[in-house]
Amino acid sequence: MDLRIFIREMEALAPPALAEEFDAGRIGLVVEGKPEVETACCALDATPLVVREAIRAGAEMLVVHHTPLWTPVTALTGQTAALMRQILLAHLNLYVMHTNFDRATGGVNDALADLLSLEDITRMSLGLTGTCTIPVGEISRRLGGNLRVWGRLDTLHRLALVGGSGFDPAIMAEAVALGADAFLSAELKHSVARHAPLACIEATHYALEAPAMQQLAARQGWLYIADPPEIQYLV
Amino acid sequence: MDLRIFIREMEALAPPALAEEFDAGRIGLVVEGKPEVETACCALDATPLVVREAIRAGAEMLVVHHTPLWTPVTALTGQTAALMRQILLAHLNLYVMHTNFDRATGGVNDALADLLSLEDITRMSLGLTGTCTIPVGEISRRLGGNLRVWGRLDTLHRLALVGGSGFDPAIMAEAVALGADAFLSAELKHSVARHAPLACIEATHYALEAPAMQQLAARQGWLYIADPPEIQYLV
Amino acid sequence: MDLRIFIREMEALAPPALAEEFDAGRIGLVVEGKPEVETACCALDATPLVVREAIRAGAEMLVVHHTPLWTPVTALTGQTAALMRQILLAHLNLYVMHTNFDRATGGVNDALADLLSLEDITRMSLGLTGTCTIPVGEISRRLGGNLRVWGRLDTLHRLALVGGSGFDPAIMAEAVALGADAFLSAELKHSVARHAPLACIEATHYALEAPAMQQLAARQGWLYIADPPEIQYLV
Amino acid sequence: MDLRIFIREMEALAPPALAEEFDAGRIGLVVEGKPEVETACCALDATPLVVREAIRAGAEMLVVHHTPLWTPVTALTGQTAALMRQILLAHLNLYVMHTNFDRATGGVNDALADLLSLEDITRMSLGLTGTCTIPVGEISRRLGGNLRVWGRLDTLHRLALVGGSGFDPAIMAEAVALGADAFLSAELKHSVARHAPLACIEATHYALEAPAMQQLAARQGWLYIADPPEIQYLV
Amino acid sequence: MDLRIFIREMEALAPPALAEEFDAGRIGLVVEGKPEVETACCALDATPLVVREAIRAGAEMLVVHHTPLWTPVTALTGQTAALMRQILLAHLNLYVMHTNFDRATGGVNDALADLLSLEDITRMSLGLTGTCTIPVGEISRRLGGNLRVWGRLDTLHRLALVGGSGFDPAIMAEAVALGADAFLSAELKHSVARHAPLACIEATHYALEAPAMQQLAARQGWLYIADPPEIQYLV
Amino acid sequence: MDLRIFIREMEALAPPALAEEFDAGRIGLVVEGKPEVETACCALDATPLVVREAIRAGAEMLVVHHTPLWTPVTALTGQTAALMRQILLAHLNLYVMHTNFDRATGGVNDALADLLSLEDITRMSLGLTGTCTIPVGEISRRLGGNLRVWGRLDTLHRLALVGGSGFDPAIMAEAVALGADAFLSAELKHSVARHAPLACIEATHYALEAPAMQQLAARQGWLYIADPPEIQYLV
Repeated sequence: MDLRIFIREMEALAPPALAEEFDAGRIGLVVEGKPEVETACCALDATPLVVREAIRAGAEMLVVHHTPLWTPVTALTGQTAALMRQILLAHLNLYVMHTNFDRATGGVNDALADLLSLEDITRMSLGLTGTCTIPVGEISRRLGGNLRVWGRLDTLHRLALVGGSGFDPAIMAEAVALGADAFLSAELKHSVARHAPLACIEATHYALEAPAMQQLAARQGWLYIADPPEIQYLV
Repeated sequence: MDLRIFIREMEALAPPALAEEFDAGRIGLVVEGKPEVETACCALDATPLVVREAIRAGAEMLVVHHTPLWTPVTALTGQTAALMRQILLAHLNLYVMHTNFDRATGGVNDALADLLSLEDITRMSLGLTGTCTIPVGEISRRLGGNLRVWGRLDTLHRLALVGGSGFDPAIMAEAVALGADAFLSAELKHSVARHAPLACIEATHYALEAPAMQQLAARQGWLYIADPPEIQYLV
Repeated sequence: MDLRIFIREMEALAPPALAEEFDAGRIGLVVEGKPEVETACCALDATPLVVREAIRAGAEMLVVHHTPLWTPVTALTGQTAALMRQILLAHLNLYVMHTNFDRATGGVNDALADLLSLEDITRMSLGLTGTCTIPVGEISRRLGGNLRVWGRLDTLHRLALVGGSGFDPAIMAEAVALGADAFLSAELKHSVARHAPLACIEATHYALEAPAMQQLAARQGWLYIADPPEIQYLV
Repeated sequence: MDLRIFIREMEALAPPALAEEFDAGRIGLVVEGKPEVETACCALDATPLVVREAIRAGAEMLVVHHTPLWTPVTALTGQTAALMRQILLAHLNLYVMHTNFDRATGGVNDALADLLSLEDITRMSLGLTGTCTIPVGEISRRLGGNLRVWGRLDTLHRLALVGGSGFDPAIMAEAVALGADAFLSAELKHSVARHAPLACIEATHYALEAPAMQQLAARQGWLYIADPPEIQYLV
Repeated sequence: MDLRIFIREMEALAPPALAEEFDAGRIGLVVEGKPEVETACCALDATPLVVREAIRAGAEMLVVHHTPLWTPVTALTGQTAALMRQILLAHLNLYVMHTNFDRATGGVNDALADLLSLEDITRMSLGLTGTCTIPVGEISRRLGGNLRVWGRLDTLHRLALVGGSGFDPAIMAEAVALGADAFLSAELKHSVARHAPLACIEATHYALEAPAMQQLAARQGWLYIADPPEIQYLV
Repeated sequence: MDLRIFIREMEALAPPALAEEFDAGRIGLVVEGKPEVETACCALDATPLVVREAIRAGAEMLVVHHTPLWTPVTALTGQTAALMRQILLAHLNLYVMHTNFDRATGGVNDALADLLSLEDITRMSLGLTGTCTIPVGEISRRLGGNLRVWGRLDTLHRLALVGGSGFDPAIMAEAVALGADAFLSAELKHSVARHAPLACIEATHYALEAPAMQQLAARQGWLYIADPPEIQYLV
C-alpha cells in the first residue's frame, strides 16, 4: 500500500483535527521511511526494544501513541541519535496518533471502558464515566495489577476514567457531578490527591493506554509489540 | 514571642533568597493571625485535619511546607473558603517554607539523607547523592513503605535522592555522572521512566518531605502533626 | 432562598457573558457563605464599614460592584486578612457584578442617564450619549457635588457619559461624532485632558456608580449601604 | 551653541540613565530641528499654544517634560500631523526630560519640596517625605489651588509627595513607614483611595510638575511658557 | 475631490481587509495633508527624490507601496525628520497600499503576470503560477535586467512568481506541487537557496513591484515617478 | 582522537560563550557519530554533496558553519530524513561553529580581512572596518565574482565588512562613523538599501563565509569540501 494511502486511512481512524493544540507537529508521520507499506506493527512507545522487534518482523511501518521526538530537537545525540539511526537505517516509517486517538471513537478511553465492561457511558470533556459491574480486584486483574487506591473506596457503582495522565481537578469535579464513586487514571500528584473530591484509582500510564493500541492492532491485522515497564513493589 | 521575631527566626532557618522564583509570594506568612506566638505546630500540608489539630493544641502558628494558596485566587469559595474560615476564625498564623527549606542546611534533602543513613554526600543542583549502607527493603521500612522500583536494581552502592517531585532528566543525568545506582524521588512520569538512565525508586511525596518537617518540629520543640495519605495496593 | 437560585437571578439581571475579559474570575460569588439567603444588602464597595453594616442587618448576602480581591492573592495578610476574616466569620456571601452590570439594561449607565433625565439616548461602545435638559449646576446637585469641569462648556445640549473611569480617547471621539458637547466620567488623566476634543465633566467614581447600586437595591427590596468618600476642596 | 553640546548639557542635568525603562526612546531629542541653538524655551507639555509661543519667541529649542509622541506612531494624521507640521516647519528642536528629570537633583520632586518649604527631607523609591511648616491652605495657595483632600487630615507634620501621577500603594506604604501624615500627588483613583493608609492630597498633574520646569527655565535663562488646564469646580 | 472620497476609492481598489496582520496601522493615509485632492502621483517608495518630484508636479497626493514609517516612531530625527518635514510642509497626503494591493485583483502579482505574458494562471497562498511563453532572457529584458538565476534552469514551462520578498519555503513547495519549473521573486537568502526544490530567479524587489504601481498610475491618470536603485555588477 | 578531546579543541578555537543567544542548542555536536575521530573534513554547509564527499573521504567528523537543524524539529521527513539517514548511517559526527566562530580570533571576519588584505583594522560590534589597498575589481576577483554594488562608489579607502547577512542599519551607521566608504556583506534588502548611508557591496553569503572554513581546514590539516551555489547573471 502506498504510504500516502496508509496515512489517509490512519487520518480517518484518528482525525488530526481532534488532537490537542500541543500535539501540533507531534502526530502523523514522525519519521519517513519506505514509500510502500506492506507490514505494520503497533506499540505504545517507540522504545529501542519495540523498534528492534518491528524491524525483525520486516515491518515498513510502526504506529505508536507517543512520539519519541516530543521536545523539538536541534541536535541528534545520545539516546535520540541511537534510536533515529535504528529507525532511519531500516527505512521504517513511524506514525503517531496521540490525543486525536484518545478522542476518536474506539480510541484510548473507549478501549478501556470496553476492557473494564463499563455500561451506561457518559462522555466527559476528557475521558468518560460508566457503570462498573466488576469489583476493584477484577479491575486490577484486567489492567495487569499495579493499582494504587488513594482515599476510601467503599462502593464502586459509577467509575470515571481518563486514559494517560488525567487526574485533573476540573475533570474530577465533572466526574463527581456525574455521580462517580472513583476516578481511574495515571500519575496522581500529591497536591491533587490532597484535594481529591472522590477516591482515586491510580494505574500505570502503560496499563491504561496499551489496550487501545492492542485492540487497534487486532482490528487492523498488525503485530502488537508489548513493552510494559517493570515495577517492583515494597509496600 | 512577637510574630515579627518568629518570622525573622524562620528566615534565618530557611532564607527566602534560596527559594525558586516560582515560589515568589507563596512562602513566608501566608495567613496572618495573632501578633504573639507562644505555641507552634508543624506539618507537611495545611489540611483541614492538620489545622483542626493545631487549633485544638492552642497554637497561634502553623508552619508547613506546602502553601494551601498555590494558585492565586480572586475568590474564596468551596474548600478554600472553608479552610480559610477555619484558620482566620482561630487567628492562626500560617507560615510556609518550601523550596527555600529544600535547599537549606538541615532541610528536606538533608533530613532524608539523615533518615536513610547516607554517607559521603555530594550535593547536586537539586538533591544529593550519597553512599547507601542499608538495603532497599530497609529504605522502604524507614520511609513507611509505599515504594515502587522501576527498572533493574542489582546493586545499590550510591543513591541519589531529591525530596518531592524530582525525577528530572537533567538531574538524573547528573546523578549518573556522580556514579549513582538508583534515584529516589516521587511522582515518576511514564515519559521520564521510559528514558531513565538508572533505576528509579519512587516513594510518595509525603514520605520524602515529611521527615524534614518532623525533624524541624523536634529541633524547635513544636508539635508535629502527621497526616499521611491512605493508599491501598492491588498489585 | 437557596444560594444557587439567588445566583441564577443575579445572572439574569447582569449576565456574566456581558463582562469584559479582565473580569474573568472577579465577578459572581467571590466569597462563599451561608447556603440560604433571606436578607441581602447592596453597596458599591465591600469596605469594612459596609461589611459591618451588612452583618449588623443580619444579611447572608452582600452584592457589590467592585470585588475586594481584584489582584489575585497567594496570601491573606494585613487589610485583606482582616476583611476576609470579618466576612467569613459571619458566613456572609459576597456577590460581585461589575462590567456585566455596566452593560446590562438598567445597569450603571442607564441608572445614571435616568438620574440625570437624559433623553433620546444613543448607546456607545461604552456608556451612552443623550439630550440633556438640565443645567450643569443641577447635574452637580444630583450627583452630590464634587464636579470638576475641564475646558470650555458653553452649551450643553448633548451629554456623553460613562460610569466609572471612562475618559478613553476612542470613546471620546465616538461621543464627538455623536454630537456630544461634554463628556461625563471619572478619573481624568492629564495626558487625556490635554488632547480632549470636548469639555470633560469629571465626577467621582463613587457618584457615578453608586446610583445604579442604590436603584438596584430599591428594585429588589434590599438594604442599600452608602459609604461615599470624604473629600475637602481647597480651590 | 551646537545642538550636540546643548544635548550634552541637558544629559548632565538629567542623566538619561536615571529614566524608567518605559521612557526608552521617549526622552532626549524627540524632534530634530536647527543644528544651532541660541534661544531656548521651556514648558510642561508641547501643546499647540506652547509651540506657537516658542516659535514667536524665535526659539530653536523647546524643552518639555512630556513627549507629544508617547504612543509609537506609524502615521502622522489629525492633531499629531498638525503639531509635527508646526514644529518641523519652524525647524524647532524638541527635547524631552521625563522620569530622568523626576529623579535628578533639582528635578521635579526637589522643586516641589522647595516650593512647599519642606525640611528634613528623606527620599523614597519615588518622591520624598519632609517636615511641613506651612498649613494646607498655604500649600493650596502655592500650588495655584485645585486641591482635593481625601480622608481626615488633622495634623500635617510630615508630608510625602510624588510629582505627577504617584498615588501608588507601595509608595504610600513607604510614606506611612516614614511617619508621613499625608501624601501629595495627582490622579488619585477610587480603588487606591479606598485602601489609602493616610490622607491623600490630590493636586493637578500640572501644578505638581510645572514648578520644576519653571525653576529650570529660571536657572538656565530660558523663557518659561505656562499653559495650565482650565478647571471649574461645582462642589 | 474630497480626501475622504479619494480614500474610499482607494479602499475599493485595494481593500484594507486583504492586508496581512503585520500591516495594521501601516497602510491607508499615513501622512495627512490637504483635504482636497486634484493631482495625484504614484511611486514604489516615498524616497526624498519621489517626494520632491510629487511636490514639483503640484500634487496633493502621493500613493506608494511601502510606508516610510514601518517601524513605529517616538521621535522624528535624522532622515525621518527631513522626509516628514518635506511632506508636511507641502501639505502632501501620503497613502500606502501594501499587502492589500499585493492581493487585490490587478495588484502587484497580476501586474507582473501581465508584464511577463503568463497564461493559465493558478493563484497560490501568495503569488501565482502560470505558463511562460517567453525565454528567460526576455523576462530579464522586461524586468530591466538585474536577474540572478540560482540552480539549473533547463526548461521553463511553468513559472511561479511572488512580487517582493517571496522566497518562502512553504510557497516554494506549493509552486513545485503546481508543476512550476522556476520561482521568480526577490531577496533570496542563502539558507533558503540551499534547500530550494526548484530553480530560483532572483530579481530586484523594485523590478517586481514597480510595474503594478506604474500600471495603477496609468489606469488612474496619475503621474508615475520612477526611482529604481542603481546597481553595478562585478561578476 | 577521542571525540570529547576533539570537541574540547574546537571549543578552544571558537568558544561557545562567544555565540549569539539564538545559537543556543544549535552549535557544538549536532549529530553524534563514532567516538573516535581520525579524519575530519570541513565545509560551509552540510549539504548532501558535502556529506557524501566527507563519507567518501572516510571521515568520522565534519565541521561546518551552518547547522542543518536550524528550526527545531519534531519529525524527520523529506530532505531532513534523507540527510540525517546519510549522516547517521555513516556514523559521521557533525560539529557546528557559527556565531562563536564569527567572533573568534581567526574567525569569519578575520579570514575575510586577510583575504582582502585589509590594514589598520578597527573592530565593530559585528564585523570590522579596515583600509583597503586593492580596487573593487580585485575584491570581486578574490571573492569569486558575484558582486553587486548598490549606490555610488567613487573612492574606496576604508572598507567595512560583515561576513554573512550583515547589512544592519545600526552597524552601517557604526561603519560611517568609522569613516567607511563602502560596506561589504550579503543579502541586502530593498528597505535597507533605500536608506543606506554608504555604498553597499553585496557578495554572496557563501563567498564571504567560506574563506574562514577553508583557512581553518588548512590550519588543522583537514580536507576542505567546496560547494558554492551556482548563479547565472542576466543583467
